[in-house]
Amino acid sequence: MFDGNKSISFDNTDQNIHNQISVGNSNFTVTPWEVEGNIDYNKLIEKFGTHAINDEIIKKIEKITGEVHPFLKNRYFFSHRDLDWVLDEYQKGNKFYLYTGRGPSGLVHLGHLMPWLFTKYLQDKFNVKLIFQITDDEKFLFNDNKDLEAINKFTFENVLDIIAIGFDPVKTTIIINTKHINYLYPLSIEIAKRITFSTAKAVFGFSNSSNIGMIGFPPIQSSPCFLPTIIEKKLTPVLIPAAIDQDPYWRITRDVAEKMGYYKPAQIHSKFIPGLINNEKMSSSKPETAIFTIDEPEKIEKKVKDTFTGGQPTVALQRKLGGNADICPVFWYLKYLFDSEGESIERYANCKGGELLCGECKGDLIKKVKPFMSNIQIKREKAKDMIKEYTIDGQDLDV
Amino acid sequence: MFDGNKSISFDNTDQNIHNQISVGNSNFTVTPWEVEGNIDYNKLIEKFGTHAINDEIIKKIEKITGEVHPFLKNRYFFSHRDLDWVLDEYQKGNKFYLYTGRGPSGLVHLGHLMPWLFTKYLQDKFNVKLIFQITDDEKFLFNDNKDLEAINKFTFENVLDIIAIGFDPVKTTIIINTKHINYLYPLSIEIAKRITFSTAKAVFGFSNSSNIGMIGFPPIQSSPCFLPTIIEKKLTPVLIPAAIDQDPYWRITRDVAEKMGYYKPAQIHSKFIPGLINNEKMSSSKPETAIFTIDEPEKIEKKVKDTFTGGQPTVALQRKLGGNADICPVFWYLKYLFDSEGESIERYANCKGGELLCGECKGDLIKKVKPFMSNIQIKREKAKDMIKEYTIDGQDLDV
Repeated sequence: MFDGNKSISFDNTDQNIHNQISVGNSNFTVTPWEVEGNIDYNKLIEKFGTHAINDEIIKKIEKITGEVHPFLKNRYFFSHRDLDWVLDEYQKGNKFYLYTGRGPSGLVHLGHLMPWLFTKYLQDKFNVKLIFQITDDEKFLFNDNKDLEAINKFTFENVLDIIAIGFDPVKTTIIINTKHINYLYPLSIEIAKRITFSTAKAVFGFSNSSNIGMIGFPPIQSSPCFLPTIIEKKLTPVLIPAAIDQDPYWRITRDVAEKMGYYKPAQIHSKFIPGLINNEKMSSSKPETAIFTIDEPEKIEKKVKDTFTGGQPTVALQRKLGGNADICPVFWYLKYLFDSEGESIERYANCKGGELLCGECKGDLIKKVKPFMSNIQIKREKAKDMIKEYTIDGQDLDV
Repeated sequence: MFDGNKSISFDNTDQNIHNQISVGNSNFTVTPWEVEGNIDYNKLIEKFGTHAINDEIIKKIEKITGEVHPFLKNRYFFSHRDLDWVLDEYQKGNKFYLYTGRGPSGLVHLGHLMPWLFTKYLQDKFNVKLIFQITDDEKFLFNDNKDLEAINKFTFENVLDIIAIGFDPVKTTIIINTKHINYLYPLSIEIAKRITFSTAKAVFGFSNSSNIGMIGFPPIQSSPCFLPTIIEKKLTPVLIPAAIDQDPYWRITRDVAEKMGYYKPAQIHSKFIPGLINNEKMSSSKPETAIFTIDEPEKIEKKVKDTFTGGQPTVALQRKLGGNADICPVFWYLKYLFDSEGESIERYANCKGGELLCGECKGDLIKKVKPFMSNIQIKREKAKDMIKEYTIDGQDLDV
């Protein structure tokens, strides 16, 4: 379930998957199918055994690229595995591939775009190739109420969004699993042969009621980690920008990589995305919880105006007590997507101090999001004629 | 593990598969991965819930085709599911597809050819299309000591054998799983979604130590059962000629067929093939146990001369006590492949009565097998230029 990112409390999954990697006795759960509770990202790093993005690694990136993306500065991407090694190899002239993906279970919303924008930054600054996998098979297998026809429609729409981000068509390859499985399958069975049901059960929480497609799926998501070495005919590092809930996939992949003669894939992990409504999942099945890339300006305005904030019930109380930016999705999106570091610090202080009212923040967000989405929508239209420049088989998509 | 047929005591499988469908308290076992003991075919029919090939159904076939194949008369094909229904549909004008397969774990031997010869008879007499699946993925996943490179070589050699049988290139499509998976995958995940691990465990005996590729494999073998309906754009019956050990695959396929809007696939089941050496498996890894399609005439002669028979240790004892044709592979191959019904009855009596010596039967078999195999070998050479007339993608095979 490759979402690139995932909203907190995401629950699109009907199949019975146990949470094998819930974190200690904390009140939150992170698996590829479920993210719930108040996530303690430091504890996640500890539990998953990953490494925090620190100033040292950011300096290294700055040295190579001349520019540090805000998502690194503000730690939206907060954790990694082997990123330092990938940078070392790059400096030695051994370029990496980027690999990320999307599970096409619905329309793309603002949150989904964030890791993709970051991936584009990495592609541009490092001048590297990217594999973008659409896990339509997995979205079908893990959702009782989704048929392939519905998923195909979302695949088409999602591919337009991906192209609209502006990835270099010469350096970017989109793989849609059900259509391009022949590029993955021989690798996938090599991986599958090395993973027992015991291991898969422990890592993913499969049970007797899991369907055998679910159990057979993980190697399909692992395969693109090794494809670059086959394409380039030499050992090629792979860096995966994705939300940290995908980590189980990369753990099993890393376990088999060296036995198969490949590098272990490196990762850079993002945090999760809050919904626009408190305690609601940001979900395609609840359109009011998310701003979609196809939403008209009026709809965007209405959604932002209607959203939950960290503010007080009345202006008087807000002036008196101040707001709570820490739980406010409006603050979150402004901070991570639009405000500069300075602006965000100022906004935080003004909210807390009661100088800033929620309406003002909502107005700021609307002012930023509307042109941002209009721009995406123009590019989505153009993308319709560009699909075959991206697909691995050079073919268009039937809808 | 689609062998078309399988030698008794076949054990090419290293993976730990339990025998979930061993038959009652009898001293034999039949699973897709293991056939062991003295098979009681009547008990198998009872246990699997299939139907015996009886005179009535043979008459029906004779009425339609004008000719009954010896493999039906002598009950080498001894059991079926829904064959009567397939014939009824045929008579109504609803033609069936044939579907069979081959697991390319080694070279093709005389025994492998038998169900293929029968399949060709069905194709010719009913004038129907055939899908021939090469389950190279499964042979790889279920055998610890096989790599894909070795299996690819056998795939190439086996495809030559299949073409040499003389299937109509216009009506025959070869699907090699690792190469043509894109034709199967969307169907395969639809099937996989409907089969829980519980069911797969009960039917195939998967355990915690099974690799997840094995667990995910069965729907790949099921998919060609439904492909004809998609190709023909109308509900199309499918008849599978194969050894009865494959029945578990068709049982799970039949369970999901109607829920998915397809006909249940019908089957016609063959018996297993004895090896040339007693208590030895007929196996590609033990070349002395089988006559391969690439064996030179001298090698064939030597193998037959060296084979175990049902005869007595000395000529004097043979004359006195008679031989045991029931356990004799030389008698078996003569009966099922070369003797007429009358010849076989006579041979049986003369063996039992001590009039016939083993050397004479061996001489008869050598006389028949040598030209039979020479003919196959000439056709195998021609087949090298015909591969793309058969493959589903119209492409040649790289070796």
